[in-house]
Amino acid sequence: MAINVPGPAEPHIAIVGAGIVGVILALGLARQKISVRVYEQAAGFREIGAGIAFSACARRCMELVDPGISEALRRCGAVSVSDEDQEDDYLRWIDGYNQHRADDPTYQRPLAQIGGAGFRGCRRDQFLEELAKDVAPGGIEFGKRLETVEQKEDGKVCLVFADGTSADADAVIGCDGVKSRVRRSLFGADNEASYAQYTHKVAYRGLVPLDRAIEVLGEWKAHNFHHHVGPGAHLTHYPVANHTALNVVVFLSDPEPWPDHSNMVAEGTRDEVAAALGGWHPTVLGLVKLLPEKLVTWGLFDLGEFPAPKYNDGRVCIAGDAAHASSPHHGAGACLGVEDALCLSVLLGQVRAAATAPGESLGTALAAAFETFDSMRRPRTQWLVNSSRRVCDLYHQSEWADQRRWTKAETCFEEIRDRSYKIWHFDADDMVQQSVAEYKKRLLGKRNGFGRDVNEKHGYRL
Amino acid sequence: MAINVPGPAEPHIAIVGAGIVGVILALGLARQKISVRVYEQAAGFREIGAGIAFSACARRCMELVDPGISEALRRCGAVSVSDEDQEDDYLRWIDGYNQHRADDPTYQRPLAQIGGAGFRGCRRDQFLEELAKDVAPGGIEFGKRLETVEQKEDGKVCLVFADGTSADADAVIGCDGVKSRVRRSLFGADNEASYAQYTHKVAYRGLVPLDRAIEVLGEWKAHNFHHHVGPGAHLTHYPVANHTALNVVVFLSDPEPWPDHSNMVAEGTRDEVAAALGGWHPTVLGLVKLLPEKLVTWGLFDLGEFPAPKYNDGRVCIAGDAAHASSPHHGAGACLGVEDALCLSVLLGQVRAAATAPGESLGTALAAAFETFDSMRRPRTQWLVNSSRRVCDLYHQSEWADQRRWTKAETCFEEIRDRSYKIWHFDADDMVQQSVAEYKKRLLGKRNGFGRDVNEKHGYRL
Repeated sequence: MAINVPGPAEPHIAIVGAGIVGVILALGLARQKISVRVYEQAAGFREIGAGIAFSACARRCMELVDPGISEALRRCGAVSVSDEDQEDDYLRWIDGYNQHRADDPTYQRPLAQIGGAGFRGCRRDQFLEELAKDVAPGGIEFGKRLETVEQKEDGKVCLVFADGTSADADAVIGCDGVKSRVRRSLFGADNEASYAQYTHKVAYRGLVPLDRAIEVLGEWKAHNFHHHVGPGAHLTHYPVANHTALNVVVFLSDPEPWPDHSNMVAEGTRDEVAAALGGWHPTVLGLVKLLPEKLVTWGLFDLGEFPAPKYNDGRVCIAGDAAHASSPHHGAGACLGVEDALCLSVLLGQVRAAATAPGESLGTALAAAFETFDSMRRPRTQWLVNSSRRVCDLYHQSEWADQRRWTKAETCFEEIRDRSYKIWHFDADDMVQQSVAEYKKRLLGKRNGFGRDVNEKHGYRL
Repeated sequence: MAINVPGPAEPHIAIVGAGIVGVILALGLARQKISVRVYEQAAGFREIGAGIAFSACARRCMELVDPGISEALRRCGAVSVSDEDQEDDYLRWIDGYNQHRADDPTYQRPLAQIGGAGFRGCRRDQFLEELAKDVAPGGIEFGKRLETVEQKEDGKVCLVFADGTSADADAVIGCDGVKSRVRRSLFGADNEASYAQYTHKVAYRGLVPLDRAIEVLGEWKAHNFHHHVGPGAHLTHYPVANHTALNVVVFLSDPEPWPDHSNMVAEGTRDEVAAALGGWHPTVLGLVKLLPEKLVTWGLFDLGEFPAPKYNDGRVCIAGDAAHASSPHHGAGACLGVEDALCLSVLLGQVRAAATAPGESLGTALAAAFETFDSMRRPRTQWLVNSSRRVCDLYHQSEWADQRRWTKAETCFEEIRDRSYKIWHFDADDMVQQSVAEYKKRLLGKRNGFGRDVNEKHGYRL
């Protein structure tokens, strides 16, 4: 990636946050020959060794942003989350609570299977490391903890860092995650939209050797993705590390408030998980026994209670988790962040082209691009935040515990399938075309002195 | 419609209930040259003078069942629910609670518009009257109140009526509505699935002269479909009677139990509606003032709490409201009943063709047809029942009353649009093709001695 010195009409973009979405966006802008620099608060790449999965649709977005990103995903060893048979690429839901057969205590009632996501899983840190290889030297500045973003009268945006330094850019994109400082700078410290809220669900994660897991689950279940659902909780597992280990995550509903919003993790134990799942199916309890004695309790936070009223303000914009941090129940948070990166890459590519047109104001073009981003991305991404909460509530239905209500409980899968397909069957190429058309329409409206609602009859937006 | 005397291998079908779905199904079976008779408990057609609307997709189903049905809809004067401009065929949501402008108390914030249903509205009784003109004389027997349905060992099904008479048929389809006796006969009087449950919403309906409504709403709103939403209630209006009257329906959330499940209506008053909407926008209160002083309170019941575990048992089947009575919030209950009628017409047309094949058992073919109907129709129709409840809950969100929560409240429209499109963009022709293919697969499975789950790997159904 070349760090160009911008000419007078060529935009220079600052990205805040060198997470997966921030780095993918930087690669996308560089491919559009846009000058870009990433500012990261940590001393190095901050991703942890946890797993992450990208749908076929998210991988198509990567391809469109820059084929080198797909290549990085392959290099870091991404594999299917279910077994290798491509025709068996399903997520499956199974009764984790009720015991159905006295003659076969291992039997669990299959509930639903939904296929077609094309998920490929990898480790976050390994993927980010591969991505970073394609960033030009100096393209990322580490140790830059953002304090505020200020839009100046000269048309520049100034980033002020905690170390006393500052940097100017023509536009700033916050990819700085669930605790985004760019978001807080947009909405103010007194606005609830600046802070993520507790979803009243917690997660416990652990890795179990696959041979031990097979003793509990049997061969077939152990090698394939399953959600075990029941009242107030679910347990999800899938094979990782080339089918040598099972990734196990237990999700519990929690009516209590989270003790400390400044720290989204707390100490936990296997015993408290087992106690919460008292009376569940022996297979689920058998898996819990294989977890380590000491666990981390992850409080699940999102932006669902106080969603961002908009993703843009003038030359400042937020994307990825900074804009729409979600609970993890669709496994799609990062996938939608990659869609964001594609949308912004395309739009800023348009801005760069417009910047060479005589008489075009860079500020007008950047504002039109970010308005377009907001209108293209906010409905879908805020829907995802709601939908992730919704499907978790459906997995945790109290009806699973009452045989008279099983028929009702099972009607949820038609909705869960629709929601999954909406995520997985997203048409990235169509988004690109629509974004360009919408950008041009808005830019024309601005030239003619109209605001953003120019094409919205009677003020309705949808 | 000819009442054929069935030959030894030609099926004779009994339909219970001469409502809109039952009569459409009878016309569809007659068009497939199937012998059919309808039994209706009332002394004549039982539909009331209330309005009903059919989407473009439901009208495509009518066309496929029998082009004469579309013709009957046109003859009874069905018109668009919004104004005549086809490009303005929208449902609209508007803030019915908050007062936004001191300088303009009539201003209401537009929230969303969703178009493309192609709804055409008419009066139920007038449509049914037109449909009945195409039924052969004697094709409907009135005054036949069903007591039970008995599947006999000789392969016939016996309908036993309250007047002491009975009738035999090769198969029975219950189109006998929300209080279906056929459903109760399938599941038993002690099963909750035999009874509709209160959805904890009530409706009050009234007609208002359009000129009076225009004084309150203004010209444009009065001529176009609007939902006014707010905490715990919504008010829906659209023009009827060639734009001379406004149909107004107020829906209220009601935490209390319904007093008497044997009677779904109760006495109500305009004053209780006005009291429930205390503090709402003056436009909504102004419309309520135009309602008659005495109203009927309609308790909204559905099959959502205890949905039918299946729609078929051997040679008996349920369809329309008898299978999936829904609250009215999608305006799609009858539309999905028409889809059912198309599916059953096609499947029984297949049965009739198979009945002429040597060695084919009529009972096997009928069971395969009804199993196919269940698998094709149950997920979508039970989804509708849930979805109708869900969208009403979204209209009634408490968040509308708290300005800090408006952004969250408004994120609901992406979901409402998805749900509306799922209903409106249904591919009737594809359902026909899939139904035939599925029927043939199941019939083959039965010939080879397999049960209904033959193609379901690991027992998963979806």
